[in-house]
Amino acid sequence: MTMLKDPSVKYRPFQPINLPDRQWPSRTITQAPRWLSTDLRDGNQALIDPMGAEKKNRFFDLLVKVGLKEIEVGFPAAGATEFDFIRGLVDSNRIPEDVLVQVLTQSREDLIKTSFESLAGVHAAIVHLYNAVSPLWRQVVFGLEMPQIKEIAVNGAKVLRDQAARFPQTKWHFEYSPETFSTAELDFSLECCEAVMDVLKPTPEHPIILNLPATVEAATPNIYADQIEYFCRNLPNRDSAVISLHTHNDRGTGVAAAELGLMAGADRVEGCLFGNGERTGNCCLVTVGLNLYTQGVDPGLDFSDIDEVISTVEYCNQLKVAERHPYGGELVFTAFSGSHQDAIKKGFAAQETRNDQLWAVPYLPIDPADLGRSYEAVIRVNSQSGKGGFAWVLEQDQGLKLPKRMQAHFSKHVQELADQLGRELQAGDIWDVFRKAYRQDGGRFELQDYEETKAPDGSRVFAGKIAVDGQVQSVSGRGNGLLSSVVATLQDAFGLGLEIRDYSEHALSGGSDAKAAAYVECVTPDGRTIWGVGVDEDVATAGVRAVLSAANAI
Amino acid sequence: MTMLKDPSVKYRPFQPINLPDRQWPSRTITQAPRWLSTDLRDGNQALIDPMGAEKKNRFFDLLVKVGLKEIEVGFPAAGATEFDFIRGLVDSNRIPEDVLVQVLTQSREDLIKTSFESLAGVHAAIVHLYNAVSPLWRQVVFGLEMPQIKEIAVNGAKVLRDQAARFPQTKWHFEYSPETFSTAELDFSLECCEAVMDVLKPTPEHPIILNLPATVEAATPNIYADQIEYFCRNLPNRDSAVISLHTHNDRGTGVAAAELGLMAGADRVEGCLFGNGERTGNCCLVTVGLNLYTQGVDPGLDFSDIDEVISTVEYCNQLKVAERHPYGGELVFTAFSGSHQDAIKKGFAAQETRNDQLWAVPYLPIDPADLGRSYEAVIRVNSQSGKGGFAWVLEQDQGLKLPKRMQAHFSKHVQELADQLGRELQAGDIWDVFRKAYRQDGGRFELQDYEETKAPDGSRVFAGKIAVDGQVQSVSGRGNGLLSSVVATLQDAFGLGLEIRDYSEHALSGGSDAKAAAYVECVTPDGRTIWGVGVDEDVATAGVRAVLSAANAI
Repeated sequence: MTMLKDPSVKYRPFQPINLPDRQWPSRTITQAPRWLSTDLRDGNQALIDPMGAEKKNRFFDLLVKVGLKEIEVGFPAAGATEFDFIRGLVDSNRIPEDVLVQVLTQSREDLIKTSFESLAGVHAAIVHLYNAVSPLWRQVVFGLEMPQIKEIAVNGAKVLRDQAARFPQTKWHFEYSPETFSTAELDFSLECCEAVMDVLKPTPEHPIILNLPATVEAATPNIYADQIEYFCRNLPNRDSAVISLHTHNDRGTGVAAAELGLMAGADRVEGCLFGNGERTGNCCLVTVGLNLYTQGVDPGLDFSDIDEVISTVEYCNQLKVAERHPYGGELVFTAFSGSHQDAIKKGFAAQETRNDQLWAVPYLPIDPADLGRSYEAVIRVNSQSGKGGFAWVLEQDQGLKLPKRMQAHFSKHVQELADQLGRELQAGDIWDVFRKAYRQDGGRFELQDYEETKAPDGSRVFAGKIAVDGQVQSVSGRGNGLLSSVVATLQDAFGLGLEIRDYSEHALSGGSDAKAAAYVECVTPDGRTIWGVGVDEDVATAGVRAVLSAANAI
Repeated sequence: MTMLKDPSVKYRPFQPINLPDRQWPSRTITQAPRWLSTDLRDGNQALIDPMGAEKKNRFFDLLVKVGLKEIEVGFPAAGATEFDFIRGLVDSNRIPEDVLVQVLTQSREDLIKTSFESLAGVHAAIVHLYNAVSPLWRQVVFGLEMPQIKEIAVNGAKVLRDQAARFPQTKWHFEYSPETFSTAELDFSLECCEAVMDVLKPTPEHPIILNLPATVEAATPNIYADQIEYFCRNLPNRDSAVISLHTHNDRGTGVAAAELGLMAGADRVEGCLFGNGERTGNCCLVTVGLNLYTQGVDPGLDFSDIDEVISTVEYCNQLKVAERHPYGGELVFTAFSGSHQDAIKKGFAAQETRNDQLWAVPYLPIDPADLGRSYEAVIRVNSQSGKGGFAWVLEQDQGLKLPKRMQAHFSKHVQELADQLGRELQAGDIWDVFRKAYRQDGGRFELQDYEETKAPDGSRVFAGKIAVDGQVQSVSGRGNGLLSSVVATLQDAFGLGLEIRDYSEHALSGGSDAKAAAYVECVTPDGRTIWGVGVDEDVATAGVRAVLSAANAI
């Protein structure tokens, strides 16, 4: 391989922001920001196959359903597909009264005019103007100096102002993005924003949205937070501006940058569901929203049926939500390791018996049920699992609650099977190995019928018909109780020396036919431990079956 | 949908750390940490189908090749698959001298013994002891108080110490994880670590690794950094400990937490390639490593053939690397939007002409070539693209460098096709539409042969054989130069009034057969602008063909 031995030849560290008295690290986010979905713009433009009108409408309806109140619907001047979709939204009255659509435009008069025309007749909307302001773009892309770059912004703002006047029936809002903000000189970004504000004259009642994009994520997320705090502290008329964040994920920290940016004073977050967007994607609104939710803050976004959200987004984007995507991934409510499974099982049990409503289950920062997912799907079993996993599966699937020591005994069977198969075990696999291990499909001794009577001395007499290798025999025995009388019968009739060390039973959980399960731990004369399991509609019979199940192991 | 209207009933905000004089927000990461891959342990235990020996060996070899010097190879006491693989690694001498393997064990004497036995004979290794210390685990999972939890750690440490003495031929290192550190009381984690250190007596020369897991990511990443800084500042004998980070990604900020944790004083990062691991995954070592790289810091990890790394990891994990994964995703070096494509194109051009080696291309924080990816793959074209994209593709694919105004002309053809197809355009699509738009597959006029002679008055005479609708005609004309003589010929012989407004040509880039491409911008008598393109092995003939290509448009 040929990676540069010394990358410092080619790459320079990002210059930190000089802000020693920064306040954001001591703050927390206590209320939801305003959200803007740019799924239909930044997300769409980054798709291998961009959405057609049908998919766009479907995505738009989903965003409305999730609770987005600000939706960037496209770049109307980019082409007929974009323009026609936006006009269709307006003309079909698909936009609810409380939803603001937003369109993006570069700072060129013709493009801005087209943008307004795409929205003519809408009740309210945001027109989003941008131009790139950072040195690399100024030098390499445009070949322009700072004053010319600022003039592009100012000229665009004037067109915005004038075009808005052409359509007075609409309540217009304006957004300005000093694009490539994250790699630009902070004071120049401020200068451009101030110049735009001078034209558009926002007020606290009718503020401008200033969106500060990490167009390319170029530093650790604390740097972005420093940039945001610096900007907020140095912007004149701060109360006439809504500070908006638009992060990308080039360093894998787009969500973190948005969160720290909110702590640094921002009011609004732009992003996409599941972090779609150019290159590495935008900030994921699902993650930031549910991160707030798990801190007890209502995000104002509803992901209570996350599987529906996922299926629509996957259909529209033709990109799969990754298996480990926070909250949305297929595997995130899954625990394969035994100690995790065990802890989760105990957590669920404790959750049921506690008096408060607070969620506190190990390894699960959110209740899967809050996202419309089920507890049963939480735990899977493979060769990395210990006893917690299969015990959970047996309980969920069959209603069986194995005694602790029996779990340890059974875990070896599960482990062997998992090692042998080398794949995840299904509930059916576990049930099969259980039936085999505890002889649930029959064995040498099979109970046909029995009666239990009480002798005059208080002892119990078991008199039963037992099929032995298929031959029914009438046998009996006497003991202190039912089970000891069965043990005595086995000794007297067949010479089997079994001793019961422990016994437990329970009603099968959840079953309406009220079966019972019984477990016996027995010791053989040569000191082996044997477990027997019996299930029957009658509690007592379940116990008898359990003893015979143990006998079948000898 | 039924999401809780008031999540504060069920969820509580994470309590911030009281650390007003925190230092980490002003720090930057200036050198690579020690890395530990836990792909074969935390990663493997979270797979639907855990790896068998063949996949584990393959993954191990990849990790060595990438440059990992510390590799957690499993949980030897968990089962035969794990134990046998680890013994196989040792017995087959697969472990390079400079690589430390690490095994994980719970704090139980039998499990620790098994762990040492799995490694007997290895030259050096790390035994990693853990127990959970946070309140939820103490109360719900174990039902134990703090002193008992601390005793579990201390007892485990004693077994570590004693077992190490049994195998003096191996250089043993110890790691202790106060598991669930991120949700535990900081002072109790410190207490447990100190107690373990009291037993194991680390020194600056032979330090203990103290690994501080965000077992479940439960707060914004700055909180984790606060926890790390607090821990580092309050640990006695700090210089006898290597502070290690082990983050998970439940809030989508596992990478950020690791980076801020390094700024907060940690020395080591545990994680997996592409962020595999329980639930939402671990910290992604590829991302953190390459994040350092793009800041000019040598990560000591080699991802210069990232596609090979991806294919091995996907094979072993049976999980796809997500399309938008930073650095590794299929789409991250792709730009679909026209303005992005245009900027990238200019950036590459500027990069070639600059005198320094510094990387500075818009939208690309890293040179794709550093990861073994090619420039050509960078840009794709769809209905969201402007002229930058197809121009790039034509140049890469056909060697054609269209003049600026011709790009604008051609972009309409591309846009139409993209709108019409509603999918990403392939290089072939663009080439097809180009050939059609500029009549590269023939037209009414076809050049058969020609001669150019110089008249005594210095004018040029074109005498050629041109097939007109299939009929070859000998025609001629006179002008100031070759092309004007062709224009005169077209006028004289066929009555075509064409005027050449602009002309350019270039050698076809990269071609060894040295063809030339010529472009003419012509105006018709009725004021229409027509572009012609000609390609030929002869520079002059390419120009003639370009004029005929324009003529064919009339």
